[in-house]
Amino acid sequence: MRIDIVSVFPEIIEGAIQNSIMKRAREKGLVEFHLHNLRDYSLDKHRRVDDYPFGGEAGMVMQVEPIDRVISHLKSQREYDEVIFTSPDGEPFTQSTANELSLMKNLIILCGHYKGVDYRVREHLVTRELSIGDFVLTGGELVAAMIADAVARVIPGAIGDEQSALSDSFQDGLLAPPVYTRPAEYKGWKVPEVLLSGHERKIAEWRHEQSLERTKKRRPDLLQEY
Amino acid sequence: MRIDIVSVFPEIIEGAIQNSIMKRAREKGLVEFHLHNLRDYSLDKHRRVDDYPFGGEAGMVMQVEPIDRVISHLKSQREYDEVIFTSPDGEPFTQSTANELSLMKNLIILCGHYKGVDYRVREHLVTRELSIGDFVLTGGELVAAMIADAVARVIPGAIGDEQSALSDSFQDGLLAPPVYTRPAEYKGWKVPEVLLSGHERKIAEWRHEQSLERTKKRRPDLLQEY
Repeated sequence: MRIDIVSVFPEIIEGAIQNSIMKRAREKGLVEFHLHNLRDYSLDKHRRVDDYPFGGEAGMVMQVEPIDRVISHLKSQREYDEVIFTSPDGEPFTQSTANELSLMKNLIILCGHYKGVDYRVREHLVTRELSIGDFVLTGGELVAAMIADAVARVIPGAIGDEQSALSDSFQDGLLAPPVYTRPAEYKGWKVPEVLLSGHERKIAEWRHEQSLERTKKRRPDLLQEY
Repeated sequence: MRIDIVSVFPEIIEGAIQNSIMKRAREKGLVEFHLHNLRDYSLDKHRRVDDYPFGGEAGMVMQVEPIDRVISHLKSQREYDEVIFTSPDGEPFTQSTANELSLMKNLIILCGHYKGVDYRVREHLVTRELSIGDFVLTGGELVAAMIADAVARVIPGAIGDEQSALSDSFQDGLLAPPVYTRPAEYKGWKVPEVLLSGHERKIAEWRHEQSLERTKKRRPDLLQEY
């Protein structure tokens, strides 16, 4: 698949790609990441892409024109399944969204920055708005990197051991059970004995019980869908 | 305030800091960011910090010892308000969490990576677990950068125009209204006339109506608390 990310700070996203599963997915030819600096599509001689908001509010707003130009340019070259905008008032991004997006062919992710984008972008150019939570960030760059990471890691072959992704939290609707590694005892803190027993069925049972118990305690809402 | 971030990939976080409000907050002396490479605290000659999980599961687990060593080292130098671990099964990170953390003095954020951390870290060393959503990432680095960004931007003085942060989504319990900038018309797409009217009271009313309407439509759950 191909993911095009449009941003005023593509460096943030490149840094994230270089140190994550995205790099491996790219090297294996599973995902192409193309980063676009929105300023390259500005018609302003100072490469500005923002301006004061109408109505006198505080903050700067990203203009519709450069965004329309980059998206039109990309769309003239191939068909895109979605033009995603990251915004705290969008649809919540979940593991099932990541799974769904990982099956698509071409995606554009537009990162907001400053006070936000001119609303006409959201009305006319964006096809899907995704949120990763009820909080506000300086920009959508980290969110875009996060979405790209979550999507890339579920593409078959991206992570070394596919079983690892399948046993993650949420893939079976439950939180993951606790994990432990050596040493078996550290400062008097011990690993649960069952995990050292070598008894496969008991270990599987313990894990399932732990998953259920943790989900019941921390996220009972997930059990209603279970 | 001071934020110490512990990770196996501090480069990702440094990249995010360099291109965001965090850099400005740092330059203004409002926040100190200290990044620690967990490998520097490994006792292994290959600087390894992970090992196979007990019980034969897939994936690698971060060991308790290097994490205990870095946290003990930091705690020996100053008192920390919280040792935060980022995990999808933690408490949801929201704007009010960001506001709350911004009032603290010293924070440690520990980034998980690989399959997760040895659960004894979470039982004995971590004081608070935060989640930014129901999905799984390669590591907690982007989450830590996001938390640091959300916290840094609400520290008074961090962003240029404080009014801008106050009128963001969630600060008043509602989603933000649409914003627009020049041109007033683009490809036939027009800015709402009221915003061009110069009539301050009408503009304020329109914005409040839009906020309410958008919240009702997209996030009715927020209105119950309103």
